[in-house]
Amino acid sequence: MVDRPDTGTRLDPWVDAYATRARGMTASEIRALFSVASRPEVVSLAGGMPFVQALPLEALAETAARLVRDRGAQVLQYGSGQGDATLRGQILDVMSEVGISAHPDDVVVTTGSQMALDLVTRIFCDPGDVVFVEAPSYVGALGVFRAYECDIVHVAMDDEGLVPEALAEAIAQARAQGKKPKMVYTIPSFQNPGGVTQGPERRLRVLEVAKREGLLLLEDDPYGLLGFDGPPPRAIRADDDEQVIYLGSFSKTIASGLRVGWAVAPHGVREKLVLAAESAVLCPSNYAQLTVSEYLATQPWREQVKVFRELYRERRDALLDSLEQLMPDGTTWTHPAGGFYSWVTLPEGLDAKAMLPRAIAALVAYVPGTGFYVDGQGHESLRLSYCYPEPERIREGVRRLAGVIEGELDIAATFGTGRVLRNAEGPEGPAPNIL
Amino acid sequence: MVDRPDTGTRLDPWVDAYATRARGMTASEIRALFSVASRPEVVSLAGGMPFVQALPLEALAETAARLVRDRGAQVLQYGSGQGDATLRGQILDVMSEVGISAHPDDVVVTTGSQMALDLVTRIFCDPGDVVFVEAPSYVGALGVFRAYECDIVHVAMDDEGLVPEALAEAIAQARAQGKKPKMVYTIPSFQNPGGVTQGPERRLRVLEVAKREGLLLLEDDPYGLLGFDGPPPRAIRADDDEQVIYLGSFSKTIASGLRVGWAVAPHGVREKLVLAAESAVLCPSNYAQLTVSEYLATQPWREQVKVFRELYRERRDALLDSLEQLMPDGTTWTHPAGGFYSWVTLPEGLDAKAMLPRAIAALVAYVPGTGFYVDGQGHESLRLSYCYPEPERIREGVRRLAGVIEGELDIAATFGTGRVLRNAEGPEGPAPNIL
Repeated sequence: MVDRPDTGTRLDPWVDAYATRARGMTASEIRALFSVASRPEVVSLAGGMPFVQALPLEALAETAARLVRDRGAQVLQYGSGQGDATLRGQILDVMSEVGISAHPDDVVVTTGSQMALDLVTRIFCDPGDVVFVEAPSYVGALGVFRAYECDIVHVAMDDEGLVPEALAEAIAQARAQGKKPKMVYTIPSFQNPGGVTQGPERRLRVLEVAKREGLLLLEDDPYGLLGFDGPPPRAIRADDDEQVIYLGSFSKTIASGLRVGWAVAPHGVREKLVLAAESAVLCPSNYAQLTVSEYLATQPWREQVKVFRELYRERRDALLDSLEQLMPDGTTWTHPAGGFYSWVTLPEGLDAKAMLPRAIAALVAYVPGTGFYVDGQGHESLRLSYCYPEPERIREGVRRLAGVIEGELDIAATFGTGRVLRNAEGPEGPAPNIL
Repeated sequence: MVDRPDTGTRLDPWVDAYATRARGMTASEIRALFSVASRPEVVSLAGGMPFVQALPLEALAETAARLVRDRGAQVLQYGSGQGDATLRGQILDVMSEVGISAHPDDVVVTTGSQMALDLVTRIFCDPGDVVFVEAPSYVGALGVFRAYECDIVHVAMDDEGLVPEALAEAIAQARAQGKKPKMVYTIPSFQNPGGVTQGPERRLRVLEVAKREGLLLLEDDPYGLLGFDGPPPRAIRADDDEQVIYLGSFSKTIASGLRVGWAVAPHGVREKLVLAAESAVLCPSNYAQLTVSEYLATQPWREQVKVFRELYRERRDALLDSLEQLMPDGTTWTHPAGGFYSWVTLPEGLDAKAMLPRAIAALVAYVPGTGFYVDGQGHESLRLSYCYPEPERIREGVRRLAGVIEGELDIAATFGTGRVLRNAEGPEGPAPNIL
């Protein structure tokens, strides 16, 4: 019998009724800090919000109105669980930019690519199955893998991202421990939070390991079109249509508020994804899907992506320049060639998580590195996002952050570092404001 | 190691890699039939699609355009995982119609109430936990409970819906078998697919059983405002805010294509729901949410619900009148006082699932009763929807169906019935076209 004690207190009377998978779901202490960090006087280098203000709002407004007026019976109605067929065809055009060729039937449209992550994990992962992720990795993916009680193993990255030898070794080790490796999750282009990119050779070697070991390769590519140098990197999926499930998103190339993403999967997998999607939400929103579809059909979307690229490049430059000018010795950071993030490593002995309240008091916010690991790593690091604030604000934010770090160094010099070894901690939860 | 055989065939090379929960996910044979049934010459009494054409499309078009134009930076951006705060406040107004009072903090906005169903099950149900559902019950809910490997137990209904004594007995029996009862899922108003409604007394007795047994009561109320006689039935949640999780939806009162629904849950549960929602989709679409919010704020939405009510009442009347006039003896059906559905029981010996191909050949479609059970019941029944076709089409559909049933009766009279006892079968999957 489910225990149902007196409800007169603020304690949760259902505490003993939750599923095992829900036990680990707790709000992180960091959330309270971020609600403070959203005050306008704080320069937030924390959130991964795209700068949607750069969109052609008037054209989008007209698109939305025309759709509802002329095609209301379709736009406002339930649709297919797999997603709108026209949009799935257009998604092929978008993916051709990263070298992928596929059939519209291979595409499943989801409520943002987060939902695709959830569905893939739902259909593949039993509790205890091992998922290999980059060290560090996307907080929202870690949240999904934890929700399905996966065994998450971080694999080292270098300047070219995921290290194939380290991956092979981690897989061998998991097998030696009697565990069941299931999939490899990677963000090969402009990684979140690392800001690094796998080169063409590196991608093929990662694929080769997955193939040899019989593991699914889950390729998450929300930033692929947002590279600052040359054409978009070729997706791993472009070279293999049986080993790879590819996740794409319109959140960064059009607008995150529409919640339209997709998965491309091998035939049998795709069928299960559609069934899982119907169970999860019946069908994606026609209103959002057809808005995207009409935008792609009538607006110069490639030009708009170029606008975003230039805008983010300018902000990336503002970040890197001011880091170069202002950061105390011993601080290092990655040099992203696209996407939204740089990964900063603090001078020896400093702790980015412990420092966060003081940073927010100094009116600058970031995400501590611990959020991107499930095993307690990351105290010495933090993620800076340059996607949302204007360049001048970015410079001001870095100035404040440099001051905070210098203050920490002074304290450490005077009193020694307060750094202690910690036990494993969870990710900070995939709160939208720390994507 | 995950088995990865040769991929040269159409067989799914990942077949051995799926999670246990995905094993039961298979497309039902009925889907192929429904793709035929969507041809315009077929009168479909199968789908539960609201008649969104009755909406004020011009006003909605202007609403959408104004939002994107004037508030694009918010509408097109990520939002809170719990949903837009203004909309959550407005949802309280909507729920006041069914007697519920709550706080905006108690509300979690979801991608349709289907997602709320998924999240509640996700946080509460371990594999094998028992969920009690009406016999028959909503196909989309059965799909969710199966996806989480729940043990689904059907409980008898009568003309007033779920029978409290039968519920108590089913719970006792499950406990006696060493199982773990977890929750009771009910659609008290204008049930899908039964078309019956629990009276006020009945609701309190169902609640009383759940309370006494310490089980969550999951109240699904998509049709509550669509009653044809008198004010909307008072929700069970109106009388208890600790035992009940209430699910609401704008799919039938505004538009299903927006995919905006919600859950109201006790404090501790709601916190976990938000965390689960963030893991599933990060946040609901601001574009869809703010469209609903602006529509509620600027349009006479109560008047519009009245328009829907009158429209569906007329169609209900068309259905019941023509059933009365045309159905062969021995056919019975429920008399819905609201919502979208009537549940028809065929003359002794006929099988609604076996009959479906012949019905479709005669250009009329319905959903066989088996789709609404997980235990092989329902062969003698079918669900008719009157929400979408015009009254004249409904009459034509019933005429065709009556002809098919008469044909079956002739065959049965000549050759005996082909009815055989069947093993337990799964629900037909929550395909949007058979909601």
